[in-house]
Amino acid sequence: MYNFEYQNPVKIIFGKGEIGKVGINIPEGSKIMLTFGGGSIFKNGVYDQVKAAIKGFEVVEFGGIEPNPHYETLMKAVKLVKSENITFLLSVGGGSVLDGTKFIAAAACFQNGDPWKILSHQAPVMDAIPIGAVLTLPATGSEMNGNSVVTRFETTEKLSFASQKVMPVFSILDPEVIFSLPDKQVANGVVDAFVHVIEQYLTFPVNSPIQDRFAESILITLVEEGPKVLANRNDYESAANLMWSATMALNGLIGVGVPQDWATHMIGHELTAYHGIDHARTLAIVLPGIMQVKREQKKDKIMQLGKRVWGIVEGNMDERIDKTILKTIDFFESVGLPTKLSDYGVSTKTIDLICKRFEERGFKIGEKANIGPKEIRLILENRL
Amino acid sequence: MYNFEYQNPVKIIFGKGEIGKVGINIPEGSKIMLTFGGGSIFKNGVYDQVKAAIKGFEVVEFGGIEPNPHYETLMKAVKLVKSENITFLLSVGGGSVLDGTKFIAAAACFQNGDPWKILSHQAPVMDAIPIGAVLTLPATGSEMNGNSVVTRFETTEKLSFASQKVMPVFSILDPEVIFSLPDKQVANGVVDAFVHVIEQYLTFPVNSPIQDRFAESILITLVEEGPKVLANRNDYESAANLMWSATMALNGLIGVGVPQDWATHMIGHELTAYHGIDHARTLAIVLPGIMQVKREQKKDKIMQLGKRVWGIVEGNMDERIDKTILKTIDFFESVGLPTKLSDYGVSTKTIDLICKRFEERGFKIGEKANIGPKEIRLILENRL
Repeated sequence: MYNFEYQNPVKIIFGKGEIGKVGINIPEGSKIMLTFGGGSIFKNGVYDQVKAAIKGFEVVEFGGIEPNPHYETLMKAVKLVKSENITFLLSVGGGSVLDGTKFIAAAACFQNGDPWKILSHQAPVMDAIPIGAVLTLPATGSEMNGNSVVTRFETTEKLSFASQKVMPVFSILDPEVIFSLPDKQVANGVVDAFVHVIEQYLTFPVNSPIQDRFAESILITLVEEGPKVLANRNDYESAANLMWSATMALNGLIGVGVPQDWATHMIGHELTAYHGIDHARTLAIVLPGIMQVKREQKKDKIMQLGKRVWGIVEGNMDERIDKTILKTIDFFESVGLPTKLSDYGVSTKTIDLICKRFEERGFKIGEKANIGPKEIRLILENRL
Repeated sequence: MYNFEYQNPVKIIFGKGEIGKVGINIPEGSKIMLTFGGGSIFKNGVYDQVKAAIKGFEVVEFGGIEPNPHYETLMKAVKLVKSENITFLLSVGGGSVLDGTKFIAAAACFQNGDPWKILSHQAPVMDAIPIGAVLTLPATGSEMNGNSVVTRFETTEKLSFASQKVMPVFSILDPEVIFSLPDKQVANGVVDAFVHVIEQYLTFPVNSPIQDRFAESILITLVEEGPKVLANRNDYESAANLMWSATMALNGLIGVGVPQDWATHMIGHELTAYHGIDHARTLAIVLPGIMQVKREQKKDKIMQLGKRVWGIVEGNMDERIDKTILKTIDFFESVGLPTKLSDYGVSTKTIDLICKRFEERGFKIGEKANIGPKEIRLILENRL
């Protein structure tokens, strides 16, 4: 394995009824901005639980953070943070609300001009307002990492930044929040977490058995528990296992000392930016194309995935790789995510646009930095 | 799974050549006490690497911390910490040096009378001097947790405490330190880490697939990589995998939300206290006895261990449990650790002493708190 550094100080508070602990985990005297999304927290009772738990604190509310949070919206929150002298951000929602809150936290302390540079130029984040999170949706892993993805609506750009400074101080994970989620959100979460693991796993071997087996542990658990949650939304045990899987999928642990890919995410982001397709659905579209186009480069790990996760042990190498790709597609489709561009009405015109954008950016992606416009065209044409 | 809280802020710096980063991770202007053991760090070059990396800091040295660190020795260090106004403790050694350093860190700040109470009465640790660690031996996991075990020589008591306050700020893990270790220390480390995993795994099922599979991932890796390191001490890849396994075995992660046992450790500590047997060797003795005596209570997890780690899938339940216990014993013996009390010249007289001590303590141990003097006698008689 490669040399690495790893540090993850996020305090995880996990289990049913734990939302009541939010208040005792926020520093006394804090002035809180409570950030949230479209209002599902009013229907599922989470808002009431949180409000009861932070009684006594001064609280400003900022709702309406979109899925794929918009820079334009977040900058309004930044203005409010400054004018209200907010000292603590409490994100109550899923990954989009939390990603947006991370950007608010960093942008409010940014001293180096336009905060857009945090996203566009990866300008270093020197300081951030502390964040706490109450998670309402298992999917992105944002609750235990320093990553954030933000969309600029006016230019259809979806960009990310990462900083230890925006890691939540604490994250409360109560699996009961899953009980009221629609199928689509559960399924998206399962696939999002699945692909997070894949991006840190499906590259080339570097003799890292702990990382590999941990990754496979999460994949197997998602494959086993995801459908159970979809079949019975009140199965607490399966909900808990799904929620913990999604957190472990992207808290950095399985990615230490190994090559990483992230091409699926980077190409997927463009599909969201141009067509508003749910993030997880873009991953379900793109991943099989990457597995196909990069099957030679990734052959050892595709074979290992096939054997250890899908139980594929027969046939020659090419047959096993084919079966592994098919099994992966089948899994995505079985939980309700179509995997073809045509399923979403996306045509070759969009492929042209995406390739042009990568052409302009001038850098290549993937674990060997060899996926450029030409390869992206092949990947997306494979998914038409 | 059960509700849980988890937080582990230790910064891990992993890989060959990383010891040189020790200086930049210590706050500027710190007055350092460098703690170490019997002097192996002078032979393997680690002392020189550390000293070069902390040039410019004021440094006081405190060597001679024993395996199973003695309270009496550590209290001398506490005195020196106070008289020299030490502000940072740098542990350069294995788990014993680090455990001892943790006690020094807590005892030097203890405001509530005799620091022995931290061990004897689990007096709360309100503050501690910050610790950094350069690990020279993979085994105890102390580099990424807040646990410490200390022996009081005059009363042959081996006791432990745990506190977030004594978690290292950083731990540097350079697998190259393994190259110069004798077989005995490598083998002890493999078994110590193996049993750490077992104590958090071999209890009863609570539907925790992530924790279970992570635990099995570490066990399989130890079983595969441990013998490779023993066979070829210069195999960096295997050394790295062994080192990372030992850290992951006891950083709290696999133990979240699941029942834990620790009876093997608690009985084993008595064998070390009375006979000075290496910690890991006491575990290799005791564990098979616990598996035998508690085979009914632990049957589901013993079967799972047998199947997923040892590949035992044939026979009825009793046969499979027998085979799993035998396979575990075989593994310990294969790396050079005898597993019978008689192998160490320990007789029934010691069993009497240990049972009497647990009689006096009055509490029972194990995941169901049902292992008392009577059961301990059965366990140890099984190992005569």
